[in-house]
Amino acid sequence: MTQLSFANKNKITEEMKAAAAYEGIEPQELLEKIKAGVAVIPKNINHDFSPRAVGQNLKTKVNANIGTSPDHICFEEELIKLKVAIEAGADAIMDLSTGGDLKAIRDEIIKNSPVMVGTVPLYKTAANMELDNRDILDFNSEDIFADIEDHCRAGVDFITVHCGITKETVKSFKDSDRIAGIVSRGGTMLAAWISQTNNENPLFEHYDRLLELVYEYDVTLSLGDGLRPGSVFDATDKPQIDELKILGELARRARKSEVQVMIEGPGHVPFNQIKENILLQKKLCDNAPFYVLGPLTTDIAPGYDHITAAIGGAAAASYGADFLCYVTPAEHLRLPTPQDVFDGVIATRIAAHSGDIAKGVKGALDKDIAMSKYRRALDWEGMYKTALEPKKAIDMRKDSEDYKKDVCTMCGKFCSLSLQDKI
Amino acid sequence: MTQLSFANKNKITEEMKAAAAYEGIEPQELLEKIKAGVAVIPKNINHDFSPRAVGQNLKTKVNANIGTSPDHICFEEELIKLKVAIEAGADAIMDLSTGGDLKAIRDEIIKNSPVMVGTVPLYKTAANMELDNRDILDFNSEDIFADIEDHCRAGVDFITVHCGITKETVKSFKDSDRIAGIVSRGGTMLAAWISQTNNENPLFEHYDRLLELVYEYDVTLSLGDGLRPGSVFDATDKPQIDELKILGELARRARKSEVQVMIEGPGHVPFNQIKENILLQKKLCDNAPFYVLGPLTTDIAPGYDHITAAIGGAAAASYGADFLCYVTPAEHLRLPTPQDVFDGVIATRIAAHSGDIAKGVKGALDKDIAMSKYRRALDWEGMYKTALEPKKAIDMRKDSEDYKKDVCTMCGKFCSLSLQDKI
Repeated sequence: MTQLSFANKNKITEEMKAAAAYEGIEPQELLEKIKAGVAVIPKNINHDFSPRAVGQNLKTKVNANIGTSPDHICFEEELIKLKVAIEAGADAIMDLSTGGDLKAIRDEIIKNSPVMVGTVPLYKTAANMELDNRDILDFNSEDIFADIEDHCRAGVDFITVHCGITKETVKSFKDSDRIAGIVSRGGTMLAAWISQTNNENPLFEHYDRLLELVYEYDVTLSLGDGLRPGSVFDATDKPQIDELKILGELARRARKSEVQVMIEGPGHVPFNQIKENILLQKKLCDNAPFYVLGPLTTDIAPGYDHITAAIGGAAAASYGADFLCYVTPAEHLRLPTPQDVFDGVIATRIAAHSGDIAKGVKGALDKDIAMSKYRRALDWEGMYKTALEPKKAIDMRKDSEDYKKDVCTMCGKFCSLSLQDKI
Repeated sequence: MTQLSFANKNKITEEMKAAAAYEGIEPQELLEKIKAGVAVIPKNINHDFSPRAVGQNLKTKVNANIGTSPDHICFEEELIKLKVAIEAGADAIMDLSTGGDLKAIRDEIIKNSPVMVGTVPLYKTAANMELDNRDILDFNSEDIFADIEDHCRAGVDFITVHCGITKETVKSFKDSDRIAGIVSRGGTMLAAWISQTNNENPLFEHYDRLLELVYEYDVTLSLGDGLRPGSVFDATDKPQIDELKILGELARRARKSEVQVMIEGPGHVPFNQIKENILLQKKLCDNAPFYVLGPLTTDIAPGYDHITAAIGGAAAASYGADFLCYVTPAEHLRLPTPQDVFDGVIATRIAAHSGDIAKGVKGALDKDIAMSKYRRALDWEGMYKTALEPKKAIDMRKDSEDYKKDVCTMCGKFCSLSLQDKI
């Protein structure tokens, strides 16, 4: 039984109660959203934690990607990143490890994470080939499903599966004038596998098998956007939309099978195309929860891509994206450090909260109103406790002279707020 | 003679040539924009530098505020901030000093700045009172005009004048249910002055005198938004719009007098109100250049307000704002350090560039396309040289192991780009 099947039977679960309480809404309201397929509660039956929901008019959630790479394998560091991401306020963690003992890292992250955990099982499939001294693309359909089943058993709450990479969409990609190619790792692997074997993507061809498998564990499918643009120039092109149409069909089939499903989205998108991207996804996928990576509104800011992604993420969330995958300052340069993870989560939370205010999520403005009142009263303790991340604010102010005054060193006695009473 | 009066006579000036060259457009095209009042070239006849234009469909410009405060007076530090802001790519500097020898600091900044310099002459008026051991609001109309004239003579290129703070708009403010009050320093001073003296704002009452004065030096008026919201809750309220309507009238009068003019805008604005704010300003002010501060899309991120402002600034620029005033991480906490200045300029440039791509500014996408091609080719030197700020990108990557490989430690051998040839 999945949360969707319970919702279809109008049965409020403990998971719905916990997730609704987090939102400050009635469980029945959440149940209706789940039933309609516009919200999901990613929680594996084998993972014990207090879940949060992702979906329409709920608080926009923030995911932090962590995990090793073949060139940087440090088990302890990834656990530190997990801790840092949680402290910074992440709602979800994806373990995207591709180096070292993948099973051990994944299981440790699941054990230690108080929030939902997502993975891309295909990475393990490719890494297993590598371990066997085979080409990373030398896997077959059974290898893919075996790893998915392993992730389901292990307690993963949502999995990214690139079911929309098909013979048809790979052709669409090859026929396109893209400049950045395919930038999704899973997408590239499957596209290359299809090209080499001339077989159809098993995740597409045997999608019903996938649905049966994840249903058993109530693993939420996150339908990956393998053809997401990797350059603002490539945004909203034919391959991207061709894949999105397939994902919409697959989302409908998932719902029919009572499998919870969300859709992944771009990527690199100019600001003026973000709204149409969100609306198009919502339309083509019957308002399934939308999980976007960024989007980055320019390609030229490596080192600062958490900011670029916050711009696009705030816009996306405002127009209806439900789940933001963070981007760290290290994106396009190297594996993120714990500090990068922290900065990435904070920037993405600012974007998510800006979106929540814009789309009128319940209670979203409460903290802003409180902060503004504390500011008006020059109540610094009040400001600190209302801050999205208090430590930086406290440190910055205490770093200045005269921090014990009521005003700050920006304006001193010319503080507009301290002059208000004269008006 | 101002650039506007030359434009009215269809005479292309050296300033127009230089500014048009910077944009990659024909001088005649820029002349037409200036003539129509939709672009300005802020350049005092007493300030020798290569000017840039601000306005419709030109590159969105970025301003960095620097300057002392009564609680933090360090002449050398402000000159370092000037240097840092220029290195980071600022198109304009505002000296907002309120502490120490204001004239000396201002003149040194003008002397050393290779870009346009703006000021708020009223700060000097208030600080002069302080120096005379009088209440900071103890100034009169002549004091205000004397300081404006002094700034004009000194070579300031644009001045913020809060002409829209009037008896009427102060009443509108008092009748409102604002929670954050007035957060503009100049706005607060004049509102308090009006309340105390019961006189009309001299900058409004004697606006023609102001126009005559600045005309002589071709100082561009930046009509200040003294009633800009200081909380997202207060955004787009009656006082703000009442003031904007007055600024629209004053902009028309400025153009008639052949004085170049731009309009300042908010402030703190929820994401979903930014578009209407920009469109409303453009409509009420006949498309006069719009110079916005942020806007900040949430109030709860002190310590990270450069990111919050980048979100709002990118949206504003996309919808037509022409000039972004940066916000640094130190906003609401203390006077910015040189590092804060750097981070503020970079974040705002990302916003401005994201806006330029969105609104189709000529050549805006060129660097993004180049970057994407370098990425696709894993050409790191190409990526560095195309980066908006190369140093951080270089440092971050060189901070990782294996940085001499073609791929990076994010994906290593699983790099999607290195696998492209297999598709």
